[in-house]
Amino acid sequence: MLAKIGACEAFIMLRTVEWRENKFFIIEQNRLPAALVYIELRSVEEVAEAIQSMKVRGAPAIGAAAAAGVAIAAIHSSAQTYDELQRDIDAAVKIIRATRPTAANLFHGINRMLAALRASAGAPVSEIQARLLRTSYDLLEEDVEANRRMGCHGAALIPDGASVLTHCNAGGLATVGYGTALGVVRAAVEAGKRVHVYADETRPRLQGARLTTWELMRDGIPVTLIADNMAASLMRQGKIDCVITGADRIAANGDAANKIGTYSLAVLANAHGIPMYIAAPMSTVDLSIETGAGIPIEERSDKEMTHIEGVRIAPEGVNVYNPAFDVTPARLIAAIITEEGVLRPPYEESLAWAAKRVG
Amino acid sequence: MLAKIGACEAFIMLRTVEWRENKFFIIEQNRLPAALVYIELRSVEEVAEAIQSMKVRGAPAIGAAAAAGVAIAAIHSSAQTYDELQRDIDAAVKIIRATRPTAANLFHGINRMLAALRASAGAPVSEIQARLLRTSYDLLEEDVEANRRMGCHGAALIPDGASVLTHCNAGGLATVGYGTALGVVRAAVEAGKRVHVYADETRPRLQGARLTTWELMRDGIPVTLIADNMAASLMRQGKIDCVITGADRIAANGDAANKIGTYSLAVLANAHGIPMYIAAPMSTVDLSIETGAGIPIEERSDKEMTHIEGVRIAPEGVNVYNPAFDVTPARLIAAIITEEGVLRPPYEESLAWAAKRVG
Repeated sequence: MLAKIGACEAFIMLRTVEWRENKFFIIEQNRLPAALVYIELRSVEEVAEAIQSMKVRGAPAIGAAAAAGVAIAAIHSSAQTYDELQRDIDAAVKIIRATRPTAANLFHGINRMLAALRASAGAPVSEIQARLLRTSYDLLEEDVEANRRMGCHGAALIPDGASVLTHCNAGGLATVGYGTALGVVRAAVEAGKRVHVYADETRPRLQGARLTTWELMRDGIPVTLIADNMAASLMRQGKIDCVITGADRIAANGDAANKIGTYSLAVLANAHGIPMYIAAPMSTVDLSIETGAGIPIEERSDKEMTHIEGVRIAPEGVNVYNPAFDVTPARLIAAIITEEGVLRPPYEESLAWAAKRVG
Repeated sequence: MLAKIGACEAFIMLRTVEWRENKFFIIEQNRLPAALVYIELRSVEEVAEAIQSMKVRGAPAIGAAAAAGVAIAAIHSSAQTYDELQRDIDAAVKIIRATRPTAANLFHGINRMLAALRASAGAPVSEIQARLLRTSYDLLEEDVEANRRMGCHGAALIPDGASVLTHCNAGGLATVGYGTALGVVRAAVEAGKRVHVYADETRPRLQGARLTTWELMRDGIPVTLIADNMAASLMRQGKIDCVITGADRIAANGDAANKIGTYSLAVLANAHGIPMYIAAPMSTVDLSIETGAGIPIEERSDKEMTHIEGVRIAPEGVNVYNPAFDVTPARLIAAIITEEGVLRPPYEESLAWAAKRVG
């Protein structure tokens, strides 16, 4: 809900992942919307399992959890020397790296922790452990801060009275808090605009039906649930003013991997003359990859398609194709909304400029 | 499975709706793929309920069931005069007309029965009852025959080794038997071509996941299940050679209403240079409606979106938009495959020509 904060009204956000007295908690997202439950992740194995089974999901939240996993490995390590600590951390990193291949933020989170480790070489082990924990805390705050700034920049793109179509969940639940695509919506509402959101249910994992509707209803932002295949029909009826989604990895040329179905929306939006925006922090940008063709696309279990909540909906033995992501080519993206500003094509230049600013 | 019939191999089809010794049976499609169960419909009320709850679905199957409902009302009538019989039949027609508004075939089936009634005026009531029953039997045979001819015409459009994307179920289960879109696939396979089908799962009612996969697997035709939002990604990868769907009503200009999501596929197919075909019998064509804008689009219960097999997947109280159909404009349709041949634009002319041939 909107709350008075100083001179303005702002949303009080849930934290999706958080440290509480050096214990790491996440919202168990597979239990939403039925129940809001925080669980503690006590080991790197528990962090890895939570990422893999999508108890924590959304590229920025995965990045924050990955960094926390490294911090947990560090503070639980019985190492007496830097080398021993490094060995324990390398083992933890190996486990976390193997969880999910697409989100750039996972690797960004890990790399930030490894940089902090290297920068601490020479310090006593207990001090290095404390610094790594502090770095993980900082990354969480930076993510919320980035989302707030992204929201401010992006809100300018949302007309008053707009209907915004979004896909999957790029909300508070996909980040540490506030959200990327939904952060932009929140910022527009905080700025006094009336915004209505159409939420694609987002098969197979139903993040739109389960999570996006839930977090927008909680904030009192009007939302209507649709099946993924209804978006085109709404566009044709003139009911969609823009599409905003998050991203899992953005290549140097602006090609963006995001939840399967995002490419479909981008083609449809372009065919109907509707702007397609991507909202993502710079930690999602991977300048080491030239184009979307280089982004690894995770394929997930058949069971995500053949069962819903444990109930079988397709014949036994059916062939299934279940990629978790697709790549939207830069030419279909009207703007990439980041914490450094609203980036426009050519993205080779604007992304490189923004990357330099975040260092 | 393919079976030897005379000199050729052909598929032995299930009958989705059928008369057995003057009792009317349908496959209860809500129980598929878990169980193949025939149920008897003994009254016009049971027929109406079966159509409304989608125990029988698919425009041609609905048309056949609607006609059977009129026949059931006729043979159960205790009328002694033509006028009394007409009153009973009018009451039955009123009930059936109110079930689902979009499929042209429902009205076509009813109108065929009413024409048979009028043509029998003057005959003894028992003879009229027998004629109406015979008309319903005939309509079932005509539907299978139309599908077979449609298949022969359409098969020429399918290259050997093709991957065909389809949406919803336009198969044997959507008709009396054999199918429209899947009839074309079957005919291509019977002609010796290798065909692979990608089946959209088709939210919210999952006809693709539950029915299309089931009937193709039963026939040994290779099929891969995808979520509706994955089609665009497959097209971009060059994995789709054509799209074929059925239709629920085709206007005089060729605009075609079909299961929600068909318009989305048509836009995507056109953006990727892939032909989009509609396969439908002439009983689906409604020349009284000039364009798709005049086709009534049914909106169905929120619960279809918020629950799957009784399990809640979205928050209580969420707003839902759940249209059952959308309209694909004629300009996006490469051809309409009918029992009279493969019709090409301008559809005003080709549809009028075909309509004259079926009389």
